[in-house]
Amino acid sequence: MIHGGDLLTYEDHYEGELVDFSSNINPIGTPNGLNEVLIDGFNTLIAYPDIKYRKLKSAVAKYLNCKDENVLVGNGAVEIINNFTIAAKRVVVMTPAFSEYEERAKVHGKEIRKIPYGEVFSIDIESFKDLQEDELLIIGNPNNPTGLRIPEKELLEIYEIVKKRKAFLLLDEAFFEFCPEDYDSIELFKEDGYKNVAIIRAATKFFALPGIRLGYCCTSTEEVDEISKIELPWSVNSLADIAGQFIFNDAEYIQESKKYIDKERRYLLEELSKIEGIRVYDSHTNYILIKLLNHNEEYAFNYFLQHGLVIRKCSSFVELGDNHIRVAIKDRENNKRLVEAFRRYR
Amino acid sequence: MIHGGDLLTYEDHYEGELVDFSSNINPIGTPNGLNEVLIDGFNTLIAYPDIKYRKLKSAVAKYLNCKDENVLVGNGAVEIINNFTIAAKRVVVMTPAFSEYEERAKVHGKEIRKIPYGEVFSIDIESFKDLQEDELLIIGNPNNPTGLRIPEKELLEIYEIVKKRKAFLLLDEAFFEFCPEDYDSIELFKEDGYKNVAIIRAATKFFALPGIRLGYCCTSTEEVDEISKIELPWSVNSLADIAGQFIFNDAEYIQESKKYIDKERRYLLEELSKIEGIRVYDSHTNYILIKLLNHNEEYAFNYFLQHGLVIRKCSSFVELGDNHIRVAIKDRENNKRLVEAFRRYR
Repeated sequence: MIHGGDLLTYEDHYEGELVDFSSNINPIGTPNGLNEVLIDGFNTLIAYPDIKYRKLKSAVAKYLNCKDENVLVGNGAVEIINNFTIAAKRVVVMTPAFSEYEERAKVHGKEIRKIPYGEVFSIDIESFKDLQEDELLIIGNPNNPTGLRIPEKELLEIYEIVKKRKAFLLLDEAFFEFCPEDYDSIELFKEDGYKNVAIIRAATKFFALPGIRLGYCCTSTEEVDEISKIELPWSVNSLADIAGQFIFNDAEYIQESKKYIDKERRYLLEELSKIEGIRVYDSHTNYILIKLLNHNEEYAFNYFLQHGLVIRKCSSFVELGDNHIRVAIKDRENNKRLVEAFRRYR
Repeated sequence: MIHGGDLLTYEDHYEGELVDFSSNINPIGTPNGLNEVLIDGFNTLIAYPDIKYRKLKSAVAKYLNCKDENVLVGNGAVEIINNFTIAAKRVVVMTPAFSEYEERAKVHGKEIRKIPYGEVFSIDIESFKDLQEDELLIIGNPNNPTGLRIPEKELLEIYEIVKKRKAFLLLDEAFFEFCPEDYDSIELFKEDGYKNVAIIRAATKFFALPGIRLGYCCTSTEEVDEISKIELPWSVNSLADIAGQFIFNDAEYIQESKKYIDKERRYLLEELSKIEGIRVYDSHTNYILIKLLNHNEEYAFNYFLQHGLVIRKCSSFVELGDNHIRVAIKDRENNKRLVEAFRRYR
């Protein structure tokens, strides 16, 4: 298993309902009124989605505050990452990172170069000095599994190198809205017309819609043209198309979710940091990386499974070895359950 | 425009609702009870779909009468075609054919070899004698836009050559259920364990669900393993997953649809064959290819658009030149409208 969220596999190991701490979804659930909108959309299933996704792209552009012609949409963020990988000559990945960056490069026979994060997952600008023409540099911002955003200053420095070298910077910002407000990459690169940069976000995590498969991206119009030639036709399902035209309008839901996660992140970071035998890393987002000081991930996984909690083992991020786990931030009741279980963890 | 179904582009050209003869969807609509099943499935949207699609594959296997481990699923048939293309060394296409066979090969930088159909779209076995190792031979069965199935004898002869040459035969059977019952490829290749062959079908056309994006495929277990490594994770949306577990059980809908199309195909073929100035090709499926003897496709397209009917221009199938159109078989009322319009067509 390289991905979270595969509860089905563990269903038989616990009597009662499992709580999924392996998958990082907004615990508030989906925006109100979405079901009604989807029901209204059932009559669209008998036709192909608009092959150009005009209304959807317009809704995304309004939400991101960019132009319609700067928008790409896809079957989850991962399809957009895949399309950029096809277009690239070589792929450069900051590690540890979401396994699909490397997987997609392998599938398409692209050379992979890895740049490791520094101490406590810091970024050393020196490590980008070897960047070459046509290389696709993929960075999670915030990164998965570390949970950390790139500081604005470092991001701009990386971008300058990318432009100078005629490389390409792909920012995977699937968890953007969960983070404390600082800079917005969409604004940061607007003046440059998103030259040599693309910012990917998704409905998956923040809008609690992993099942609907909707990712979107802001990049230059040239790159939109380029990637459009690679895209599968109709890759976004009609109901995902309709959902995307609805969810971004719910300003109240968006504010409430941000506040909720902020509060629960503080709670979990504080309570978990008191636990002995683990090292809790800081997080900007809705999941927390934890180093196990006395056990391996397998031991921890089985321990929590006995308590009905499924956590994410991190050995698939090879750089982390077998002694890290990742937990999602959920609602207070479940977060408490996690803390209680950790208190009894030996 | 290379695909049908793009009504949005023509909305402003006609006062009233356009009838889409460019997109070949079951005119009966979707199986009864689907809406209720989808509504029940809304609560699954907050979780990722099962990454292994176990229940969906089991439903497909039962419908196709093959084993679960022989099944692949995808975001429409086109995603599965795309994955086989990635795995291939070279792509061989019978032409004219669905444009995506060639498009996907281009996207992935694969060499393309074309084998033209013979007179009246017949198949000459001699033309497969040059087939080479690792070549992916893609054939629409029935083919789009010609509407014709490969006769069983020819198909088995092609398969023997494919096996001998260690090539691979990909049958795109997206329109299978519309055809008069003869052989079933799933049965035909069962004894061989689907060695060097894959049969792709989809919910798109026959179950009238182009918006839901659900394709599926039957092939050898070795090939299932191979393609699974290439697949995007979670490429089938949760609601498509649920729909696929439901629609195949509606035996009555399936029978009724087959009868309906058979009757309307006879009606349209008979009525259209009386029209002067066009040549109507025979069809096994739910669309009809027509050669315009006096005009080009543009003239015909605009003529029918003035009558509120959107037909499919066929010049994107380069072998056909600019004097062919394709029309879908719809319900009697609309089929009559098409016939009436053709009667006044000069």
